[in-house]
Amino acid sequence: MTNNKPLKDVIVLDLTRVLAGPYCTMILADLGAEVIKVERPGVGDDSRAFGPFINGKSAYFISLNRGKKSIVLNLKDEKDREIFKQLVKKVDVLTENFRPGTMEKLGFGYEELKKINPRLIYAATSGFGHTGPKSKKAAYDMIVQAAGGIMSITGHPGGPPTRVGASIGDIIAGLFTAIGVCAALYQREKTGKGQKIDVAMLDSQVAILENAIARYIVTGEPPKPLGARHPSITPFEAFKAADDWVIIAIGNDALWAKFCKAVGREDLIDHPEFATNAKRTENYDKLKPIMDEIISKKTAAEWIEELDKAGIPVGPINTIDKLFEDPQIKARNMLVDVNDPEIGKMKVAGNPIKMSSFEDEKDRQPAPNLGEHTEEILKRFLG
Amino acid sequence: MTNNKPLKDVIVLDLTRVLAGPYCTMILADLGAEVIKVERPGVGDDSRAFGPFINGKSAYFISLNRGKKSIVLNLKDEKDREIFKQLVKKVDVLTENFRPGTMEKLGFGYEELKKINPRLIYAATSGFGHTGPKSKKAAYDMIVQAAGGIMSITGHPGGPPTRVGASIGDIIAGLFTAIGVCAALYQREKTGKGQKIDVAMLDSQVAILENAIARYIVTGEPPKPLGARHPSITPFEAFKAADDWVIIAIGNDALWAKFCKAVGREDLIDHPEFATNAKRTENYDKLKPIMDEIISKKTAAEWIEELDKAGIPVGPINTIDKLFEDPQIKARNMLVDVNDPEIGKMKVAGNPIKMSSFEDEKDRQPAPNLGEHTEEILKRFLG
Repeated sequence: MTNNKPLKDVIVLDLTRVLAGPYCTMILADLGAEVIKVERPGVGDDSRAFGPFINGKSAYFISLNRGKKSIVLNLKDEKDREIFKQLVKKVDVLTENFRPGTMEKLGFGYEELKKINPRLIYAATSGFGHTGPKSKKAAYDMIVQAAGGIMSITGHPGGPPTRVGASIGDIIAGLFTAIGVCAALYQREKTGKGQKIDVAMLDSQVAILENAIARYIVTGEPPKPLGARHPSITPFEAFKAADDWVIIAIGNDALWAKFCKAVGREDLIDHPEFATNAKRTENYDKLKPIMDEIISKKTAAEWIEELDKAGIPVGPINTIDKLFEDPQIKARNMLVDVNDPEIGKMKVAGNPIKMSSFEDEKDRQPAPNLGEHTEEILKRFLG
Repeated sequence: MTNNKPLKDVIVLDLTRVLAGPYCTMILADLGAEVIKVERPGVGDDSRAFGPFINGKSAYFISLNRGKKSIVLNLKDEKDREIFKQLVKKVDVLTENFRPGTMEKLGFGYEELKKINPRLIYAATSGFGHTGPKSKKAAYDMIVQAAGGIMSITGHPGGPPTRVGASIGDIIAGLFTAIGVCAALYQREKTGKGQKIDVAMLDSQVAILENAIARYIVTGEPPKPLGARHPSITPFEAFKAADDWVIIAIGNDALWAKFCKAVGREDLIDHPEFATNAKRTENYDKLKPIMDEIISKKTAAEWIEELDKAGIPVGPINTIDKLFEDPQIKARNMLVDVNDPEIGKMKVAGNPIKMSSFEDEKDRQPAPNLGEHTEEILKRFLG
């Protein structure tokens, strides 16, 4: 195996804070980029103050900023502004997730920065984007989950609103920004020129509504939440076994026949109301009690073993602690150690992009203390 | 504005079906790649048969495959295998989302294909990944949402399991695969070599659990679902106004003070139980009825107008139909038209990666009929 990360030698000047931006630059760092966080004097990234804490350090901050460097600059101070400009000249990528207009007010909008460095890739992640009537509005994850439609289709019919348990309003915007940065790096190899990338959290939510938009277009009815059930595949749902919930996902008619055999209900295979996926979905209300009755007879663990042997997609609903015991997650190196000098080893999520050009390390460098690399970076870039 | 898409001249031979893989190649197509879908004779991509349908065509298939081409090949037929190998020689990227081992059985594993084309970027998206003890198991979105932990933190305390309403088990794996492909294209410019990318849906779910893993590490307790509430920021939740739900997201103490003033409850600003975010989160059960009482006095629309004016993050829970009326989503070109020759114009989600190197079109080319481009592609690549 060669051991060259794809983004090695790429330098990212990272003005992002909290989640959407830092998530993007975490991925870039995992792929080999050198990420230099530019932080405000005194406090730095707001998320340094977000719990939960270990020995006074934010576990949240550490998990998102492992392996990055930190330089403290006051972008309103003349001397620091000069340093900033010198850095902009020498880096490949600048990332920011300020409210649109903030960088322009500082005199560091893309139009200014590209004069200093025409090869600069300037990636902005914001709530509503750098254009449009709501551009300047503040956004938080939940505002965007709600505005973008996903909350309206998550939860139980007739029940209260339900937020997706991870901050996907931020995270998905971070993922799209990372795609934009890598695509722009590729394009720069051809053209020699940088560009601006503008990713909005709201847009990113709209982009993940694969079948909800299609369903609305076709039926004219806004789709509703369906609990733990797939909208158009049946049975494909969480069922209550004797002791606990279990997911059974019967994605096609061949699996339906296999399932009916495995549970001794061959009579259902060609049943006129259940023979095809379309029929099963249409007659969901009739099938549901039959399924509930079948599944209630054994424990979740028994079903997982039996149905898995029969080749039927089945699985548990894992709580977070179970991830730490899963042999597959271990084999895939998806929980890695951050070696923090003050708190020791701490587990964080690993890098899911496994590439044959490099071996994924078992651990990660620590997240930086505020301004830890100021001197090193000034020396290296400004002499 | 120049008008060069970043992936122009990149050719993707796309063996993917249904969602995770096609979502990835949809993004690559939006960024300018030429995506050639290789489909089985007779049926093609399974999702051609998935509802909802317009005039007998799958709206689901169209939304994910707009702008791609289709060639029909039987990879078990000698003549078609030869054609496939000729195509592999001439393309940049191959994508597949078969169960691991399928391509090897066909004699087309990465180790074989790189002999034919050492510059080939081979991107595999699968349920559990190409390594590890569960590698060969089948996965569907809900199995992975459940196994990866997000279902355990989505929903209401004590309530039944809740699936995230979009298929994020597939979609997030598609996003990570797209990052891998773009990073590998960039790396190939430096090294001249292709590589294999291996992204698992399960890994991708673990990767988005930003603060759930951190909370578990610190407390030793697996985090539980919290309804529509943020785990560590308060108040940050869906509240029931006089007529409907409204999201209010008070992300810091300055916003708390502003909010208290806006609702005429200055007494709460420095209240010993609510003065800081940490206090408000700790005393959530005391604050909740106070908030409920305040918010119940006006309609959602009134709160959105008033609090927005006061600079407090606030917003509606939009159903899917509302996205079509949102001026910001319109201004950002996030619902674009596919011009299908048989069904006319159909709206699909747009591209959220806005890049200054190209202007995002207002419409998209149609999804291909099965084998629509077989002849064209054979002529062009094989003469």
